[in-house]
Amino acid sequence: MHRLALTKPDGRQLTLYARRPIDGALVAPSPFPEPLNASPHLRWHPLRGEWVTYAAYRQGRTFLPPPEYNPLAATVRADNPTEVPAGAWDVAVFDNRFPSLGVPPGGGEAPPALIVPTEPARGHCEVVVFTQDPGGALGRLPLDHIELLLQVWGERTERLGARPEIQYVLPFENRGAEVGVTLHHPHGQIYAYPVVPPVPARMQEVAAAHHATHGRGPLEMLIEAERAGGERIVYAGEHAVAFVPVCARYPYEVWVAPVRAVPGFAQLTPAERADLARALKTVLLKYDGLWQRPLPYLMAWYQAPTDGRPHPESHLHAQFYPPYRTRDRLKYLAGTEIAAGLFAMDALPEDKARELQQVEVTL
Amino acid sequence: MHRLALTKPDGRQLTLYARRPIDGALVAPSPFPEPLNASPHLRWHPLRGEWVTYAAYRQGRTFLPPPEYNPLAATVRADNPTEVPAGAWDVAVFDNRFPSLGVPPGGGEAPPALIVPTEPARGHCEVVVFTQDPGGALGRLPLDHIELLLQVWGERTERLGARPEIQYVLPFENRGAEVGVTLHHPHGQIYAYPVVPPVPARMQEVAAAHHATHGRGPLEMLIEAERAGGERIVYAGEHAVAFVPVCARYPYEVWVAPVRAVPGFAQLTPAERADLARALKTVLLKYDGLWQRPLPYLMAWYQAPTDGRPHPESHLHAQFYPPYRTRDRLKYLAGTEIAAGLFAMDALPEDKARELQQVEVTL
Repeated sequence: MHRLALTKPDGRQLTLYARRPIDGALVAPSPFPEPLNASPHLRWHPLRGEWVTYAAYRQGRTFLPPPEYNPLAATVRADNPTEVPAGAWDVAVFDNRFPSLGVPPGGGEAPPALIVPTEPARGHCEVVVFTQDPGGALGRLPLDHIELLLQVWGERTERLGARPEIQYVLPFENRGAEVGVTLHHPHGQIYAYPVVPPVPARMQEVAAAHHATHGRGPLEMLIEAERAGGERIVYAGEHAVAFVPVCARYPYEVWVAPVRAVPGFAQLTPAERADLARALKTVLLKYDGLWQRPLPYLMAWYQAPTDGRPHPESHLHAQFYPPYRTRDRLKYLAGTEIAAGLFAMDALPEDKARELQQVEVTL
Repeated sequence: MHRLALTKPDGRQLTLYARRPIDGALVAPSPFPEPLNASPHLRWHPLRGEWVTYAAYRQGRTFLPPPEYNPLAATVRADNPTEVPAGAWDVAVFDNRFPSLGVPPGGGEAPPALIVPTEPARGHCEVVVFTQDPGGALGRLPLDHIELLLQVWGERTERLGARPEIQYVLPFENRGAEVGVTLHHPHGQIYAYPVVPPVPARMQEVAAAHHATHGRGPLEMLIEAERAGGERIVYAGEHAVAFVPVCARYPYEVWVAPVRAVPGFAQLTPAERADLARALKTVLLKYDGLWQRPLPYLMAWYQAPTDGRPHPESHLHAQFYPPYRTRDRLKYLAGTEIAAGLFAMDALPEDKARELQQVEVTL
């Protein structure tokens, strides 16, 4: 992996990654001349016992720009800068101009004094450009390009997780207008949180209790059982696996994971990383092959917290949530899902797994 | 409150409620001649530590029926039965024909044997028809009709909660195509769960810890602080209050509650119920007045669990989640909300409260 770290004119960081050496003379562009001046804050939710982050300046952020402007495409004309330079790179990571988390050097504005506890919204939000091809897709990248991305996610997690204020690093991709995506150039995001957020906190708690009882985490045991049965398996390699989980909460939900309970991207062996790339590409091609059109989804990668403590219960994996329940019907999250948190499924995971198994793909 | 309990030809229960006496000769219709034969099951999610319910037969349920057929309108012709009879009633409650929870008498089919624990999906799902007017709205009903509905929710909670298998009763309304609603006749639902579901379970846990420390629940203290400041108040009566909470997770989120920490609908005094109806109607009229069109929302009413234990920490209240962040932009739940559970807000609750305060309404 080759990398080049640059600073944008507005002070934000840009790092380019490539399979081959990168020209050291590249310069980081920015569509924004002025330094970012954002001070999001957290408010405590006293009924749910969790933080909520407020960033009112984000209301002015980029929204479905006209097709002639793509801020994630390489800059062609210096008088019309985008977020990334032209040049031979494969993956680019830069600081989000509209962060929900992250305070400026010096601390920024003090959070407002309110009737609940408030804090500066420490943390960090990054954008990850998966490819220079605006019409491409993560699943159509070559395997060694996807392997590079897995390395990049590992490197970002290590760098962000090393900051004392960062407790959890979540790489994710929102794909498709159906999940609210405003820029269609293939890209994801990384949120680095100053707390372990509610969903991974709950999963860590459950996994730790399981590990204390069984000496292994729940995902390692589930993977063993899914592989033994095979009914819901979408990809089974030597080191990596993909399946519709027996407890899927979305009709086309799929999990992708290394077989070994690896805590995060940075701890994958090269052979594990290569097989995980094959598992990931297989799922993505099956998704797009299902109805011969790009399937929208939320993809989230769960890792161990970066709180400095050992987490033998953690097991790196992706959860994919596509919003469709059939070719032309969305699954809406409504009363029981949103208000109660108890998901109701009209489809059986076994049936949806069979549909995905029948989609043939070539890696 | 007057009530008439009936049984439909397919065995489902229908109860009619009215402010005036009901004709005892009314007969319960059903669009379905055959008894319901549904056996949903629960599967344990070993990573999240929660149940998911599966009801595959629901895929065939009613979906945006043609305008000439409204199953929630009163039956006009005996050869075209709907779910409710013609006659002088105000609110109707009947067993959902497509329940996510509820097993037939005798237990139904055994749940499948799988690699995670499974259970029959005990519980109960009801539909609540708010009015006979298919073009009406909850917020446009007269105050005494809304008071009747609050009584009905109380009665249903008491009846369902008295069943030994029911641990939690959640009345809610999904309103608008934007939240997936398939029938536009004003109606809500009641889910009666065999467990305290994840979201209320978390809120109960947080409230119990707060009550142990402060001698009061967190909502009672928050209401006191919101009323003292007034900045986010939408309705302030002697016994009931509505406000955009300081920790809102949706731009137009509003909570409606009695001032006193009443555990559930059935424990409201008549004066509290009357004022709660005024608070509820005020919020609903302000919502529809905001952009002079029906505002979609999810409305959920949280009460004490019906697990037979005392819950001094519980405080009846509604949380409203409208899916819009501006007049023409939806708020999508994506990476940080769905995958991490940490909500990011672009709008400040103080600004949204001001917008709602400025909408004038006449009760």
